[in-house]
Amino acid sequence: MKEVFVADLAKLDENKPFDGVFLVLSKQQRTTRAGKPYLSLTLGDNSGQIEARVWDVTDHRIAPDFEKGDVVKIRGCVSKFDGTLQLKVDMLRGVMEVEYERADLLPATTYDVAELWVKLQQAVASFTEPDLKRLVEAVLADPAVSGAFREAPAAKQLHHAWLGGLLEHVVSLIGLADRVVPHYPILMRDLVLTGVILHDIGKIRELAWATGFEYTLEGQLLGHIQIGASLVEKTMDALPGFPPRLKTLVLHMILSHHGKLEFGSPKLPMIPEALMLNFLDDMDAKMQTLMTEFQKSERMGRAADEMTDRIWALDQRTMLNSRAWLNADESKS
Amino acid sequence: MKEVFVADLAKLDENKPFDGVFLVLSKQQRTTRAGKPYLSLTLGDNSGQIEARVWDVTDHRIAPDFEKGDVVKIRGCVSKFDGTLQLKVDMLRGVMEVEYERADLLPATTYDVAELWVKLQQAVASFTEPDLKRLVEAVLADPAVSGAFREAPAAKQLHHAWLGGLLEHVVSLIGLADRVVPHYPILMRDLVLTGVILHDIGKIRELAWATGFEYTLEGQLLGHIQIGASLVEKTMDALPGFPPRLKTLVLHMILSHHGKLEFGSPKLPMIPEALMLNFLDDMDAKMQTLMTEFQKSERMGRAADEMTDRIWALDQRTMLNSRAWLNADESKS
Amino acid sequence: MKEVFVADLAKLDENKPFDGVFLVLSKQQRTTRAGKPYLSLTLGDNSGQIEARVWDVTDHRIAPDFEKGDVVKIRGCVSKFDGTLQLKVDMLRGVMEVEYERADLLPATTYDVAELWVKLQQAVASFTEPDLKRLVEAVLADPAVSGAFREAPAAKQLHHAWLGGLLEHVVSLIGLADRVVPHYPILMRDLVLTGVILHDIGKIRELAWATGFEYTLEGQLLGHIQIGASLVEKTMDALPGFPPRLKTLVLHMILSHHGKLEFGSPKLPMIPEALMLNFLDDMDAKMQTLMTEFQKSERMGRAADEMTDRIWALDQRTMLNSRAWLNADESKS
Amino acid sequence: MKEVFVADLAKLDENKPFDGVFLVLSKQQRTTRAGKPYLSLTLGDNSGQIEARVWDVTDHRIAPDFEKGDVVKIRGCVSKFDGTLQLKVDMLRGVMEVEYERADLLPATTYDVAELWVKLQQAVASFTEPDLKRLVEAVLADPAVSGAFREAPAAKQLHHAWLGGLLEHVVSLIGLADRVVPHYPILMRDLVLTGVILHDIGKIRELAWATGFEYTLEGQLLGHIQIGASLVEKTMDALPGFPPRLKTLVLHMILSHHGKLEFGSPKLPMIPEALMLNFLDDMDAKMQTLMTEFQKSERMGRAADEMTDRIWALDQRTMLNSRAWLNADESKS
Amino acid sequence: MKEVFVADLAKLDENKPFDGVFLVLSKQQRTTRAGKPYLSLTLGDNSGQIEARVWDVTDHRIAPDFEKGDVVKIRGCVSKFDGTLQLKVDMLRGVMEVEYERADLLPATTYDVAELWVKLQQAVASFTEPDLKRLVEAVLADPAVSGAFREAPAAKQLHHAWLGGLLEHVVSLIGLADRVVPHYPILMRDLVLTGVILHDIGKIRELAWATGFEYTLEGQLLGHIQIGASLVEKTMDALPGFPPRLKTLVLHMILSHHGKLEFGSPKLPMIPEALMLNFLDDMDAKMQTLMTEFQKSERMGRAADEMTDRIWALDQRTMLNSRAWLNADESKS
Amino acid sequence: MKEVFVADLAKLDENKPFDGVFLVLSKQQRTTRAGKPYLSLTLGDNSGQIEARVWDVTDHRIAPDFEKGDVVKIRGCVSKFDGTLQLKVDMLRGVMEVEYERADLLPATTYDVAELWVKLQQAVASFTEPDLKRLVEAVLADPAVSGAFREAPAAKQLHHAWLGGLLEHVVSLIGLADRVVPHYPILMRDLVLTGVILHDIGKIRELAWATGFEYTLEGQLLGHIQIGASLVEKTMDALPGFPPRLKTLVLHMILSHHGKLEFGSPKLPMIPEALMLNFLDDMDAKMQTLMTEFQKSERMGRAADEMTDRIWALDQRTMLNSRAWLNADESKS
Repeated sequence: MKEVFVADLAKLDENKPFDGVFLVLSKQQRTTRAGKPYLSLTLGDNSGQIEARVWDVTDHRIAPDFEKGDVVKIRGCVSKFDGTLQLKVDMLRGVMEVEYERADLLPATTYDVAELWVKLQQAVASFTEPDLKRLVEAVLADPAVSGAFREAPAAKQLHHAWLGGLLEHVVSLIGLADRVVPHYPILMRDLVLTGVILHDIGKIRELAWATGFEYTLEGQLLGHIQIGASLVEKTMDALPGFPPRLKTLVLHMILSHHGKLEFGSPKLPMIPEALMLNFLDDMDAKMQTLMTEFQKSERMGRAADEMTDRIWALDQRTMLNSRAWLNADESKS
Repeated sequence: MKEVFVADLAKLDENKPFDGVFLVLSKQQRTTRAGKPYLSLTLGDNSGQIEARVWDVTDHRIAPDFEKGDVVKIRGCVSKFDGTLQLKVDMLRGVMEVEYERADLLPATTYDVAELWVKLQQAVASFTEPDLKRLVEAVLADPAVSGAFREAPAAKQLHHAWLGGLLEHVVSLIGLADRVVPHYPILMRDLVLTGVILHDIGKIRELAWATGFEYTLEGQLLGHIQIGASLVEKTMDALPGFPPRLKTLVLHMILSHHGKLEFGSPKLPMIPEALMLNFLDDMDAKMQTLMTEFQKSERMGRAADEMTDRIWALDQRTMLNSRAWLNADESKS
Repeated sequence: MKEVFVADLAKLDENKPFDGVFLVLSKQQRTTRAGKPYLSLTLGDNSGQIEARVWDVTDHRIAPDFEKGDVVKIRGCVSKFDGTLQLKVDMLRGVMEVEYERADLLPATTYDVAELWVKLQQAVASFTEPDLKRLVEAVLADPAVSGAFREAPAAKQLHHAWLGGLLEHVVSLIGLADRVVPHYPILMRDLVLTGVILHDIGKIRELAWATGFEYTLEGQLLGHIQIGASLVEKTMDALPGFPPRLKTLVLHMILSHHGKLEFGSPKLPMIPEALMLNFLDDMDAKMQTLMTEFQKSERMGRAADEMTDRIWALDQRTMLNSRAWLNADESKS
Repeated sequence: MKEVFVADLAKLDENKPFDGVFLVLSKQQRTTRAGKPYLSLTLGDNSGQIEARVWDVTDHRIAPDFEKGDVVKIRGCVSKFDGTLQLKVDMLRGVMEVEYERADLLPATTYDVAELWVKLQQAVASFTEPDLKRLVEAVLADPAVSGAFREAPAAKQLHHAWLGGLLEHVVSLIGLADRVVPHYPILMRDLVLTGVILHDIGKIRELAWATGFEYTLEGQLLGHIQIGASLVEKTMDALPGFPPRLKTLVLHMILSHHGKLEFGSPKLPMIPEALMLNFLDDMDAKMQTLMTEFQKSERMGRAADEMTDRIWALDQRTMLNSRAWLNADESKS
Repeated sequence: MKEVFVADLAKLDENKPFDGVFLVLSKQQRTTRAGKPYLSLTLGDNSGQIEARVWDVTDHRIAPDFEKGDVVKIRGCVSKFDGTLQLKVDMLRGVMEVEYERADLLPATTYDVAELWVKLQQAVASFTEPDLKRLVEAVLADPAVSGAFREAPAAKQLHHAWLGGLLEHVVSLIGLADRVVPHYPILMRDLVLTGVILHDIGKIRELAWATGFEYTLEGQLLGHIQIGASLVEKTMDALPGFPPRLKTLVLHMILSHHGKLEFGSPKLPMIPEALMLNFLDDMDAKMQTLMTEFQKSERMGRAADEMTDRIWALDQRTMLNSRAWLNADESKS
Repeated sequence: MKEVFVADLAKLDENKPFDGVFLVLSKQQRTTRAGKPYLSLTLGDNSGQIEARVWDVTDHRIAPDFEKGDVVKIRGCVSKFDGTLQLKVDMLRGVMEVEYERADLLPATTYDVAELWVKLQQAVASFTEPDLKRLVEAVLADPAVSGAFREAPAAKQLHHAWLGGLLEHVVSLIGLADRVVPHYPILMRDLVLTGVILHDIGKIRELAWATGFEYTLEGQLLGHIQIGASLVEKTMDALPGFPPRLKTLVLHMILSHHGKLEFGSPKLPMIPEALMLNFLDDMDAKMQTLMTEFQKSERMGRAADEMTDRIWALDQRTMLNSRAWLNADESKS
C-alpha cells in the first residue's frame, strides 16, 4: 500500500530521504547551463502532483527505460525553492501492478464504489416499466460497460473529474431525481431514471483515465453523446420486441441532455422527461462544482469573506460560501 | 353567481337569447359599410373571451356609459361566422359588485387559495432560523402585502398568468425546495425558502389585475426585482437587530433570482442558495408552462402524435406529450 | 396521365368546367354567414396549389369520405376574386393509384431520376479505396434505402425541397467535389465522396413526402444526423474487417457536416475531408437556393433592377441577378 | 510630507540608502534556494508600486508585526535586475497617521477636491425644481455620504480609478450635461442633473479604497446600482410630500444608467432623461479613458505613430493620438 | 398651391366631392367579385397616405396612362368603412410641375432649408484649420452635391426620414458638436466638424426621394459609407498639397462613424474625433427619434401614462414621455 | 548567398563559432544582476528566429549603431539553456544589400514568383469580357502595384503570411475558381475572376513587410477593403467608357468579400459572383491554414494520433491529419 502522498511531502524534513510510489505524468530531457543533461519529471498521485529532477541520468540506480504513464518507485528528498516544493530523485525503478493500487495514483471518488454500485442496482430494481428495466439491465450486464462505469471520471477537468466520478454523479442524480420527479406527475419516472443512468454512458469510451484524464481520439471525433446513443441503440436493437416509440424517446433523452445546441446536443429537449434530465444534470454538476471549489478555498486557507477563484462552469463567476461567512460573523459575538 | 361562461357559449343554440355577466376587455365604436355606427366589444371571463356587437347604440336597453374594465350584464345570442363564434348584444347594463365574484371574471388558480395560504404559513412556521422567520412573518403580516399576495398573477402572459398564480407558484416552489434542499447539505434551508417566498413579492406592485393582466407604470420603470428588494429591505430595516450580513444575503437572493443579466437580474447568483433558487424557479416555471401547453393541445383536440405550438418560454420549441404518445401506441395493440 | 395543372388554371375560361386530378393538402368544414356549411379545401399538384370550395356538401356527386392526403378527381370551374383565382368544385371522387403519377402531384426534380441514379453509381464505381467502396455499395444495396433515396426531398422548405431533391443535391455535390478535391492533394478523395453520398442519408426517415413535405416524429426527436449515423454505423458493423479508424472518420463526417453546433452538428469538422464536405454542402445549397429565387422572381415578372424577396438561407438578404441587370443595361444601347 | 515617490526611484543611485514612506500592498514569506526565509513585499504610493525584499527577517531594525494595508517607513536602496528595479529594505517601522498624507499613498485626482465640491454645490444651487433640489441637498447633507463622496474612486481599475475620481467624474458630467441638455428642449434639466449627481452614489459602499481599490463584499453581492437606489429611495421617503411619480423617475434613472441589461442595469432607459444620462456617462468615461491611455503611452515614450495598448473599455481596441500624429508630421517639414 | 392634405380628409363631409393634388405611391389593377376590373391606388402627400379606388377604369374622365410616381389631380369623395377612411375617385389627370410644390407631396423638414444652409455655411466659415476648410468648401461647392444635400432625407424610415432630413440632422449635429467639443480639449474641433458635415454625404446617392424614399441599387450594393468615402477622397485628391495624414484621418472618420462592424462600418473608431462623431451621431439620431415618437403618440391621442409603440432604433423598447406624465399628475391637484 | 539559417543552428556544435546573416527583429539594452549592461536581440530569417546576446557592448567588433530592421552579419556560437537554443554574438556588423537576398530573411512562398506571375497573366489573357479585361490589365500595369503584388504577404500572421503569399493565394484561387465556376452556369466567370484577382489588392498598402510583417497606420485606420476599393475605382474612372453598372458590381465584389459585417465587410454579398468569391476565398484560406498546421505538427515531431494546436482561423479548434492517422494504423499491420 502506498504510504507517502504528494500532499504529505510539504511536511517532510528537507533533505531527509524517503521512498514513494508515483505515476509519471510527464518526462522531459533537459540540459543545465553547464550543458549537462538531466531529467525533468512530473510525478503525481491522487492527492496532487510535484516537479521532480533526476540530476544524473547515467546513475545505475535510475531505471533507463520508464515512460510517461508508468508507475515508479523512487527514493529522494524534498527541498523548497522560492516557496515551491521540489523533489530530487536519487533512485527510480518501475513497479509491478501488485505493488500499488491504481486508485492511489489518480484522484478518485471519496465514496465506496461498491456501495455506489449497489445503489445503482437498487434503482434499476425499482423500475416498474418492464422494457426500460430490461434495457438498463442489459447495458449494465455488459462486462465492458460495468467495469468502465465503475472507474470512469465524469469529465476531464470540470465536475466529478476523478476516478469513479461518473458513477458518483449518476448515483447523486438518481437520488435527486427520486426527490424531484414525484413533484411533477406529468413525468414518467422510469424514463427519467433511464436517462439519468445512461445519458453519460458514452464517456466510458470518450475519456481515457489510465494515466491522467484525457480524451480518446474517438471521443474527440464522435463525442460521448454519439458514442452513448450508439451503444444504447444497439442494446435496444438486441432486445426482442422493444417498442419503437420507446426506443425513440430513450435516444432523444441521450441526444438532448446537454440542453443546448451550443453545448453539443444535436437536439433540444422536446419531451418533459428530457427537459427534466437536463435540469437535474445541470443542477447536480453545478452544485458539485461549488462544493469542490469551497473545499479548495478552505484548503488554501482563504478567509470566510474571500470569494472563490473564478469558476469556469459558472460563467467565470466567483462565489461566496454564505454559511461560512455568516458563521464567521457570529463567532465574533 | 355567474351561470354562463364564455367556454360554454359554443354549446348554446344559435339565436336563443341568454343572460350573462362579463368583463369588458375592450370597446370600440365603428361604422358599417352603410355608414351606421355600431359597437365592437371584447367580453371575457375566466374561461376565455369573445367578440360581441351592439348594432343599435341608441337603443335605450343599452347602457350608454360603460367603459373598458367595467363588469356588465348582457342579454344576447350567439351565431357562428366562418367557424368563429360571435355574440349579438340586445341588452346591456352595469352590475354592482355584489352581483358577481371577481374570480369568475378573470382566469384564476384551480387551487383553493385558502389552502395555499395555509401551506405558505406552515412553511414559515417550520423555519428554525429566527431572523429569517421574523422577516417573512413581518412581510406577510402587512395587510397590503398579504391581500395582494393571494390575488396576484405570477406573470402577464407566461407561466401562472392567472389570479392566485403568484401564490400557487410560490407554494409549488416550497414543495420543490423541501424535496431538493436536503440533497445538498451545503444549502441553508431557511435562506432558500426565504428566497422562494419573497423573490417575486415585487409583482404585487409590478402587475395590475383588476381588468386583465397588465404592467403598472411603476412596474415598467422599476421592475419587480427592485420593487421587491425595496419592500424587503425596509422590512428588515424595521426589525431590531437584524444581522447586516443576513440582510445582504437576502437582498442578493432577490436581485439575482433571474439568473442572468439579460433577464434583468442586476447580479448573478454568487451564493449556493441563490444558485439553487434560480434553478428551482426556472424548473417550476418551465414544467408548469409545459403542463399548460399540453392541456391547451388536448382542448384543441390535437392527436397524440402532434407537437404543441411553439412555446415562448422554451426558446420557441414545440414539445411532445411523451406519455400520451406512448399510450396511443399501446392502445392500438 | 394528368392533363390540367394548377399553374395552368389561370389560363382557363372562367366558369367553363374542366376535370383534373389533385392532392388534397387541407380540408376544413366551415359555415357561411347564413349558417350553411361548406368545405374549404386546398388542392395541389407539382406546379402549385389553389383554394377550392364545395358549396353543397350533401350533393351526391361529392364523395363524403375523402381526407387530407387523398388524391381526388374533381370537376369544377375557376373564378377570380380580388385578383385571386379560386376553384368551385361540382363533382369530387377518389381515384385509384393507376389513374395518376405521384410525381405529377408533388414538386419533383426536373432531372431524370434514372440518370441521376446512374451518375451516383458511376461515382461509387470510381472509388479506389476498397473499404469505402463496399460501404457505400452496401448502403445503396439496401432496397429500403435505394427506393427512398430516389424519392426523398432534400428539405422541407429550403433548398431542393422537391421529390428527388436529395438525389439531385448529392449528384450535384459529386460533380462539385470531383472539381474541387484535386485542387487540394491533402484530401482523400474517396472519403470526401463517401461523405457527399451519405451525409444526408438520414433524411429518408427524417422527412415524409407522401402528402406534402413534413417531418416525421422520429425525425423531430432524433434528426437526420443521428438517424444517418446510426444507419451507416450498422452497415459498417456488418462489413467484416471494416477498419475501426475508418469507421470513426466516416461517422465523424456525418456528425460534423452542418459545420456549426448551432446548426445541430454535435461535432465540428476536425479533419480536412469533413471541413471540405461542409464547404461543398453549404456552397451547393446556397447556389441552388439562389437559382430557385431568381426563377421565382422572373416568374413573378420582376424587372431586372429589382432584388429578390428576403432569402431565409442567406440571412434574410435580398439578392440581385447581376447578369440580368447588366444585360438589361446593354439592351438599352 | 512624503519626499520620495516610487516613480522617482529609478533616478536614485543604486546602493545609496534613502528613507521613504509607502503603503504595504502585499506581504509574503518565502524561502531562498538555500532554505533561508525572507520577505517579499509590494510597496506602493500614488505614483506606482515596486517589489521589495527583506532578506533578514530577524533583524531588530525590521518591525515584526506589520500587515498588508499598513503604512510603513523604510530605509533601503534600489538595484536593477534584468532591467527591473528592485528595493532592498534594511530598516522598516510603522508610522503614525500624522506622518503622511493618505493622498500621497494612493493615486488621487489631480483636481482640487474642495473646488470640485464647490462646483457640485453650485450645480445643486442652480436647480429650479424644488423637490429634486431638496432631494440632492438631503443626500449630500448626510456626513457619511459627503465624506465618502469626496474620497471614493469611480472604479476599481477602469476610468477615474483614483481617490476623488467619483467626484471628478460627476463634476465633469455636470459640465457636459449643462452643455448638451439645452440642445434638446424635450429634456427636464434638473432631472438629468439629479441623475448625473446620484447615479453612482452607491459606489461609496461598493468600493473600498483604504488600501488599494477593492470591492466590498456588500458591493459584490448587491452592486452600486442597488445600493445607490436604496440610499436615494430612503432619502426620498424621508422628505415630506415628495411626489410619487418623481420618485419613480429618479429611481428609474439610477437603475437604468448602465444602458444595457448585460452591463447590470435591471431596466433599460425608458424616459428621455435616462437615455441622455446613459449617453453622457458613457461618453465621459470613454473620453477620460482615452486621455489616460494617451498619457500612459507618452510616459512610456511611445512614438507618435504608435497605437496605445488594447483598451478594455473600448472593446480591446488600440487607439491613435491623432493630434500628436499630425503634429509629428508637420514638425518634419 | 396645394389646398387639401391627406391629414385633412377625415374632416370632410362624406360623399361631398373635393379636388386635390397627390402623389401616386402605388397602382394596382384588380377585379370585383363580379369580375369587373377596377383600380386600387395609394395616394399620398407630406401629411400621410390613403387608399383610393377608381371603379370605372374606362371612364373618359380618368387619364389612362398615369404611373406610380406621377403627381395627379383628382376629384372624388371620402367614405368610411369599418373605421377606415377610403377615397372614391371620379376624375383623375396628370399635372404639370408648376401646379404643385414637391415639398407638399413628401414629408419634409419643418425647418427653413435656406436657413439651415446658412448655418452650415457659417460652420464652415468658422474653421481655422485651412486644409479641412478648403475640403469642406470644395465638397459643398459641387452643385450636384449641394443641390442634393438640401433635399435628401437622412434615412429611408428611421430618424429624419423626410426631405431635408439630412441637412437638418447635420445642422443639429453641428450645434451639438460645438457644445460638446470644448469640454474635451483633446479633440481637434475642425476634424470633428468635418466628420459631422461629411459623414453621411454618401446618402445623396444611396437614397432616392423622388417618389417615396427608397434605396438606389448603387446604394444597396455599395452603401453610403463607401459612396461618401469615395466622393470625399476624390475631392481631397483634387486639392493640391492636401496632407496625406489628414486625408487618412478624414476617411477614417467616415468609415468608422457607425461605431460597430455589425452596423456596416468597416473600421471601428480609432481616434478621439471618430469616437466623438459616433457618439454625437448616435445621440442626435436617438433623441430625434424619441421626439418623433412622442409627437406620434400625441397625435394618436394617447394618455400621458401610456408608453409609445415599440421603437426599432431603441432596441424595440417603448418609452414614456416623462414630462407629460409628471405634468398630468400636477394638473390633477 | 546566405549559408546558415536559424533552422540549422540546432545541428551546429555548441561553442564552435560560425558566421551568418540575419535580420534584427528586436533590440533591447538590459543589465545583468551584477549591473553590467548587455544587449538582448531577436535575430531572424525565413526559417525562424532566435534569442541572441551581446555580452560586451563596448567591444570594438560590435557595430554601435544598428537598429531593429537592419540586416547584420554576425559571428558567434550557440549553446542550449534549459532546452532552449541561444546565440552568443562575438562580432556584429551591418551588411550591404548586395550581400544578401531579402527572400532569405523573411518567410517566403515556396513557389517560383515568376511562374506565379505568368499564371496570373494567363488568367487575365483568358478573359472574354473586354471591360473587365482592360480593368485588370490596367491595375496590374501600374508598376507600383505589380511590384508590390509580387512581394506582399496575404496576412500578418494567418494564412499565407509570407513574402509572395498574396500572389500565391490569388493564383491558387484562380485555379480553384476555374474548377468551380463552370459547375454553376449562373455565374459570370470573368466577374468572379476579377474579384479573385483584385479583392485583396489593398493589402499592398495595408501591410508592410520590410522587417517582419506589420500593419501600416493607413492600413489600421482604413483597412485593405477600403484601400483596394479606392485603387480599383480610380482605375475604372480612368478607363474611357467603363460601364457604370459593371463598376458598381466590381466594387461590390471587393466590399463584400469577407462575407460578414463582423469581419469588416461593409456590405454582404448580394450577387452570385460575390457569394462565390467569399466561398472560394474562405475555403482556400482555411485549407491552406490546415496544410501549414499539419506541416508544423510534423516538424514538431508529433505522433499521427496527436491533434494540432488550436487553430485561430478555425474557431480555436484542433484538427487531425486523417490520412496520416489512417496510414499509421496500416503500417502496424
